[in-house]
This record gives sequence, C-alpha cells and structure tokens, in this order.
Amino acid sequence: MNLKEFAKALNLSASTVSRALNDSHEISTKTKLRVLELAKEMNFEPNPFASNLRRQKNKTIAVVVPDITNHFFAKVIEGIESIAQEKGYHILIYFTLDSYLKEVATLRLLSNGRVGGIILSLSAETNNYDHIRELKKRNIPFVFFDRVCEEIEAAKVTTDNKTAAHQATKYLLERGCRRIAFLNFSEFTATSIKRKIGYIDALTQNNIEVDTALILNCSTNKKENIEALTHLLTTQKDVDAIFASSENLSIISYQVCESLGINIPQQIKLIGFSNMTLAAHLNPSFTCITQPAFEIGNEAATILFKSIEKPHIDYSDTLIQLNSSLVKRNSTN
Amino acid sequence: MNLKEFAKALNLSASTVSRALNDSHEISTKTKLRVLELAKEMNFEPNPFASNLRRQKNKTIAVVVPDITNHFFAKVIEGIESIAQEKGYHILIYFTLDSYLKEVATLRLLSNGRVGGIILSLSAETNNYDHIRELKKRNIPFVFFDRVCEEIEAAKVTTDNKTAAHQATKYLLERGCRRIAFLNFSEFTATSIKRKIGYIDALTQNNIEVDTALILNCSTNKKENIEALTHLLTTQKDVDAIFASSENLSIISYQVCESLGINIPQQIKLIGFSNMTLAAHLNPSFTCITQPAFEIGNEAATILFKSIEKPHIDYSDTLIQLNSSLVKRNSTN
Repeated sequence: MNLKEFAKALNLSASTVSRALNDSHEISTKTKLRVLELAKEMNFEPNPFASNLRRQKNKTIAVVVPDITNHFFAKVIEGIESIAQEKGYHILIYFTLDSYLKEVATLRLLSNGRVGGIILSLSAETNNYDHIRELKKRNIPFVFFDRVCEEIEAAKVTTDNKTAAHQATKYLLERGCRRIAFLNFSEFTATSIKRKIGYIDALTQNNIEVDTALILNCSTNKKENIEALTHLLTTQKDVDAIFASSENLSIISYQVCESLGINIPQQIKLIGFSNMTLAAHLNPSFTCITQPAFEIGNEAATILFKSIEKPHIDYSDTLIQLNSSLVKRNSTN
Repeated sequence: MNLKEFAKALNLSASTVSRALNDSHEISTKTKLRVLELAKEMNFEPNPFASNLRRQKNKTIAVVVPDITNHFFAKVIEGIESIAQEKGYHILIYFTLDSYLKEVATLRLLSNGRVGGIILSLSAETNNYDHIRELKKRNIPFVFFDRVCEEIEAAKVTTDNKTAAHQATKYLLERGCRRIAFLNFSEFTATSIKRKIGYIDALTQNNIEVDTALILNCSTNKKENIEALTHLLTTQKDVDAIFASSENLSIISYQVCESLGINIPQQIKLIGFSNMTLAAHLNPSFTCITQPAFEIGNEAATILFKSIEKPHIDYSDTLIQLNSSLVKRNSTN
C-alpha cells in the first residue's frame, strides 16, 4: 500500500496524511493521532526516506553551534525549530564544543550533501575560514548567526554587539565604576571583537584610560578561565566592575567572586551577556544584555528555507541585525 | 590522491591521518593542524563519506531528548559526546520538545538506518511504545536513559528516582513542612512515577496524609504550568513546601512565588530536581537533587558502542542505576 492508497482509505488527501505523519502544525492533533492509529491498524508503513533520498536531504537542515549549555544557543535552536516544524523540516544539531578542528570535521561531513542547508555559529577558536569557503564552492545553502565570519559573503543574522557593549559599559561608568575588567570570550570572532570595541569606545569617550591589564582574553576551558579571573581579581585590587562578554563568563564571574569573598555589587559590579531564564532570580539579580535569541533563530531559518527553495536567487548579501536589550538589576546597584 | 598516498607523503600512517582528520583525541593538536594544513596545500580532499556509506552510518549515532533548555539533558549530551569523540563517532541530536508525535516521527526517520544506534529519553507525553518496539524489530541498537520505558527490554541507564524523592520529601518533613505540594512533570514516564511514589511513601511513613489536591500533574506547556501552580498556591493557602520533579518546574516555582509575593523559604520551602550550574547562586540558593548527568551520558554511550561493535552479544538486560545527590541550600532553610 502506498501513501496515495492509504490516504484514499482514510478519505483524506495524500498531502494531509503526509503532513500528519510529519507532525506538521497545520494538522490537528486529533487528525494526526487518527492517521497514526490507522497506519498501525492497516499495517501501512510510510517509507518516504529510503525511496526518496533527494527528499530526505532537502527536508533536513543542520544547525552547527559551539555550546549546548549556553541558553542563548538553546533559544536560537528553539526559534529555528519553530520555523522548521512549520515547513516540515527536520533539524540536526551539531556541537563544535568551541573547537576549530571539530567545526572543520563537522562541516566536512555536512558538505557531502547529507543536509539541504546549514545554520552556523562559529567556534571561539575559528580563525581560518577555508572550511566555510568550501560550503560556498559546493553551493550548500548556509546562514550565519551571532558568531558570523565577516570575511565571507553569506546571509547573516546578528545583533548590535558594539552598541550593546557600549551601552553596558556606559551604564557601569554612570554607576561610578572606573576600573572595569572586560572578559573577552574570543580573540577571533567578530562578535567578541565588536563587544570589545564597544567597551573601549565607551571608556575613551568618557576619558577613562583603557588598561589592557583589565582585558582578559579567555579560552574555551572553564577551569582555565576561573584561574585567570581569580588571578586578575587578586592582582588588580582596584577592579570595581566586571563586564563578561558571554553567558559562560558571566556564570564564572558569580563563582569566582563568591570564592574570593567579593561582594557583588558592593565591591564589584557585574554586567554580562546572557539569556538565562533565571537572571532575575540570581543573588544578586543579574544585570544583563539579552539577545533576542528566539527571533534570531526565526530569521536565520526563514532565510535558509528561502535559499533552499529558491536556489536561483542569491541571498548571500542578506544582513539582518536585531537589537539586544539591557535589563538593569541588582548586580550593578 | 587517496588517503594512503597522502599519508605516505606526510610520512605518517594512514590510520594516524584518518584519526587526525576526524579530530580524534588520540592525535595531538599539533599533528592535526599539520595534517589539515598539508591537506589544504596538497589539495587533498578526504572524502570517506560519499564513498563509504556503511562507514558513515556506523560512525554516527543519534541522541533523542525531550528538551534542550534543561541542563540535565545538556550535560548528558556532553557525557555522550566525550565518549563518542574518543570512538570517532559523530552524534546527531534530535529534540522531541516533549511531543509524542514528534518522537514517533523522529524514530520513524531514524529507523531507516541513517545511524548506527540511538540513545533515547522519552517525551513526557509518551504513553504508547509501538515506535520503540519497531526499533527492536529492526535490530537498531538503542539505549534508554533517565526517562526509560519499563515495558520494553532494552539497555537502560537511570538514577535512584524513588530513593532521591523519598529523601527530599523526608528532608522537608524534618524541616517542619506538612503540606508539601508535588509538581509532577509527567503522568506517564517511569521517572516521574517513581519520584511521585518516593514522595508518597515518605509522607505515609511519617503519618502525613497524602492530599491529591497538592499533587499537580503538569503539562509540557510552560504557560499552562505557571497558571496551574498559581491556582494551586492561591487556593491551597496552607502549602508550606513545593517539591518540583523537574528542572523546568523548579524554575517555574521561583517565578510563581515571586509573582505572588511568596517568600522562599519563610513561607514556602522549595526543593527540586535540577542540574543548574548556578543553583548555589539563586536567591535563595536552591536545595536540589542533582543527577550525575555527565556520567549517565558516559554510561549510555559506552553500552551503545558495545552493542554496535558486538552485535552478537545481547545487551538488552543491562540496567545501570546511578545515585543522585541532595544538595541542601537556603531554599529549604
């Protein structure tokens, strides 16, 4: 029995049955359950994938992200998933664990055509882009988000990193801070570089000297970062604020301040990038720059599906920039 | 140029080159970078995947989990990844978003042989296991973790859910609580059922009446759960503790108590399952049962790779149970 015959037996269109079996949002749960139940009863085994590799390929996209424990990436994936579900696509998630080599290996695997397109955020280590150029050469549709590569012409979804970092630094200056440590999550990615520029510009415009001893270039190793921040805070006794350029570095800042007995915000004020649900419930509650992660995922997926469905149109100059928001709480009080 | 010739040109063994290109932990970063660089210089394009679909299939495993924002699953995946990397496997991550239909669709997709094996934790909605039986029928190696299906004989990695919930409830009783609300994350999964039994047993053994009005069967919809908990706390004014059976329900408890102006721990003590890094930094710091998530991932991956590599041995009666730990903090003070 093929799909057509099965659909006929159910008195439904083949398209409805197909969408029901693919858990499309356009089909009611009641219909989906009815289709599944009858498929079982009638021993109908839908097998569109084995017989149609082309469709399988085109109905799957890959999302390549550095880190799973970061709420930002988790929420971007939710945003991608919501569009993918509408479109009847499956998503495969790959983690590079912020390793350049893992990113290269992953993209090599994907460049073999196992997916219809890729949504990608670079690892903190990535400093060479040949593996990305390879995707272009092979005409594999892809969209960058957040940690984009500026050197390569491709569709990109980013946020206002420089402006957001400038605003956060300015806010710390207004709160009276003068010795603001900046925790830089990567020396290479455009995202972190722009955040650092925002920080430096805000200091300079307010006639505060930029002290490179206060700029900590962090690695992708949590333990190393804890040691480096501990060293910074014990040698630079006059630090009065920390600006963490990523969620992981924000978390470490809470941990290191506690272990050194430093009171936030009395001794050191803390600000950082984060999409944590519980930011308001931390002790003290966390002043953070929140990126519109779900929307970023939505936008990136929308562009990718356009590129997949309309291969004759070039989307590689698409650049979408969304705004982050600074939420002021007690860690800067 | 094939791999053998390329390896010869580098004066390395083909196996070393292959492992370097697959980012194996057995090869030093220096060698990996050298291999990548020379591959580029010499225009060597390793393409093991197109030419060897069998290898591709066997070198990829799928991990199917309900929820990405839950730290527990994030850390289990890290644990799986660490073993997969050693073994030179890629992992594909699928989210069911706690939807039974999505789980069925995902396993149907995977049952077509695109991966060498599956590590799986059930959705909160799953109440019918035909799609799992299908995996067995098709001889696809799979391992359950945490949210396992008791009806099906398969390798399983779990924690001591009943004992941990019993211990947590007993601790609340020792702190003087008598009206303990239990937030049940699923009516179907063995994990949540065992946690509920632990809660009920502890009450009964301490001669506290079990009041079903205090047992909230939550859904997979965050908004609905917030409304239901708000309703519970406003109608049952004498509730003096909340026991949240999942991380998501723990987070909601903080949010609802704040919005109702309920002080934790003065008015209501809070305990829950969670693997949050920042549990100690919440306000108040969070008394929680932490599962050994990374180890769970390690164990599950180890069994799966054994099943894949030794198909003649039956691992379906393997049952590994690890212990959770109760960390006492201020939310129960």
